[in-house]
Formats: sequence, C-alpha cells, structure tokens
Amino acid sequence: MYDGIVQELIDEFGRLPGIGPKSAQRITFHILQTPTFDVARLAELLSEIRLRVRFCEVCGNVAEQERCAICRDPRRSQALICVVEDAKDVAAIERTREFRGLYHVLGGVISPIAGVGPDDLRIAQLMTRLADGSVQEVILATNPNLEGEATASYLSRLLTTMQITVSRLASGLPVGGDLEYADEVTLGRAFEGRRVL
Amino acid sequence: MYDGIVQELIDEFGRLPGIGPKSAQRITFHILQTPTFDVARLAELLSEIRLRVRFCEVCGNVAEQERCAICRDPRRSQALICVVEDAKDVAAIERTREFRGLYHVLGGVISPIAGVGPDDLRIAQLMTRLADGSVQEVILATNPNLEGEATASYLSRLLTTMQITVSRLASGLPVGGDLEYADEVTLGRAFEGRRVL
Repeated sequence: MYDGIVQELIDEFGRLPGIGPKSAQRITFHILQTPTFDVARLAELLSEIRLRVRFCEVCGNVAEQERCAICRDPRRSQALICVVEDAKDVAAIERTREFRGLYHVLGGVISPIAGVGPDDLRIAQLMTRLADGSVQEVILATNPNLEGEATASYLSRLLTTMQITVSRLASGLPVGGDLEYADEVTLGRAFEGRRVL
Repeated sequence: MYDGIVQELIDEFGRLPGIGPKSAQRITFHILQTPTFDVARLAELLSEIRLRVRFCEVCGNVAEQERCAICRDPRRSQALICVVEDAKDVAAIERTREFRGLYHVLGGVISPIAGVGPDDLRIAQLMTRLADGSVQEVILATNPNLEGEATASYLSRLLTTMQITVSRLASGLPVGGDLEYADEVTLGRAFEGRRVL
C-alpha cells in the first residue's frame, strides 16, 4: 500500500508476535511522525541485543555475562531450585519477591505434538546441578496446563531416587477472582488444596 | 526485572503505541530466541526510515521523492481531490480501489481542546492547489466524529465561494453490520441518506 521503506518497515513490524498489519502501520507512522521518539536508540539496541545477550551457563536465564545476575548473587539460597519453562517465567516469579533461591530454565516443555522430547530441554543440565547433593528442594513451576503438568510429572519421577524434596506450585482460585466464574478444574484444585485455618 | 540491554529493549518497545509491558517483553524474547527473525534488517530499516521518508510537497502523503507515487501517476484524475486527516487514511482509501483522483493530507483536524486550529493544518496548501480552477470536486473524507465533522464543515464553508463541488463521504450502516447493534446516530444517518432502489 505504501511506497518503499514505509511498507518494508510495516511488514517487518508485522512479523513480530502480537503485531497485526494495523498495529504495524500505527507503529511505523508513530516513528515517522513523533520527533520525540528516539528511533536511533531502538535501532541501536536491536542491532546489539543478540550480540550482548547470552544465556546463563548455569540456569539458562538471560544474561550479559557467563552467569546471570541471580546465579551470581551470593545472598540467594543455593539449596532451592525453581524449575521454569522460560526466562520470562523467572521475571514473573522475581516480581512476587517471594522466592530467594535459584532457577533452572528448561527452555520449553515436553510436547509430543510439537515434537519436543525431554532431550530437547535443559534436563541433563538440571541433573548435573543436583548431583552434588547441596540442593534440598526442587520447585516445579511449569505452567498449570497439559504440557506443563506432563513435564512436571516427568521431572518428579526422575527425581524420586534422589534425596531431594520435589514440590509443585499450588493451583487454586486466583486472588481477586470470583468463585462463580472459576472453571471446574480450578475450583476442584482449590478444594483439593484447601488449608486448615 | 531483567539485566541491562534486555530491559532497555523492553522499555523502548513499550514506548511504541499499542505495546504494553507484556507485549514488549514477548517481542523482545521473540527477537532473542527466534534465529529466523532478521533483527539486523529491522534495525537497518529503523535507522534509515526518517532519513529516507519525507512528505509529498503537493499532497502531504508519505513519499521517498519530492512528490508521492500518487501525485506522480499521470493516470490519476487531476480534477478530483480527496481531503483526509492523515497519510494512513490515504492507504485505507487506496485499498478500496474506488477512488482514482488525488489526495490532500491535512495532517490532523481542527480541535480546540488539543489546541489545533486551521492554521496548524495544510489548509493554505489546499487553497493553493485549488486556485487554478482545474479541480472540479473536493471530497471531504475526514473521520465521521466530532472533530472530523467540524473540520469538514469549516472546509466546506471556505470552499463555497469557489466553483467547486464539495462532497462528504456517506455515513450509514457498515456493510456486514447489524441494525440491532447500530448506534442511534449512525442509524439516523442511514435513514437520512437512504437511496431509492
């Protein structure tokens, strides 16, 4: 629809997740027409990001050094490892400020449909980390959906032979939610996991 | 939440319109984790776009030369000018393939609240284009909202002294829409503008 580079930039933005053609057009025109938007900085960050970011050798989280900021932090408990699917989940858990242990990013979940098996995930690296016996608890924090549950149960079976407590995040009603609108499975889990007051 | 450049890129994406913190995070991780996404190309386009794109001297549409592709096209009728608010509207109208005349981009609408008066728009340039008498019809295609209507009526008053037909895009029910869900104003306009079959 547009001349040359304008259409090229719209197309390129349209390849990003969650950005449709209309949003891509809106973003492109915003960049063109808003002098206060620092397009040079965005271009610079984009050309550097893949060069500067690597993944932590220990846990697989995003890092700019060999080890990520969490693995380098001596105040974090070395006896607790929280296993997550993705580096984005690390950030989500960090936001709660509830967890002061370490992480292990699997890099996905077991999914026969997507052709992802245990060998495609960072499971061998997790076993290596657990080998020296210093870790006391592994918290399985994969998503509470089909693949996440399957991955968690695969890992828990793998860990039964070791002297390690294996736990799973609680499922139940979301805080601020409404009982009336909760699905049966979630409400069932909330009953199952009820706590004595 | 993230180390260095990852967070910087998330913040920068978050400054674009329609991209919230979660989308910005998702986009940043997509760029990091999808080797097939050509980040260098996006960076290059971003650093070039403002240098390469200017606005057409005649109509104000986006262009990479002094005049835009539409103004340069000899097959387009020189007797018809469609007045729009924004360059994005040119693309929207071009997609219909219904209009074969020229455009005039105002660069906004009259809006006392936003402090935009007639002098802030490309109205003087429009009058210059109309001065030689070759244009027979001006189609006012500003948006059918408060500011768009006010701008259209301002322009139509300005053009009454000239020997030019001034028209406005039809308002009515959107095609594929539902009478039941149409608002009163739109439905009223559809009655007003009804056509004899």
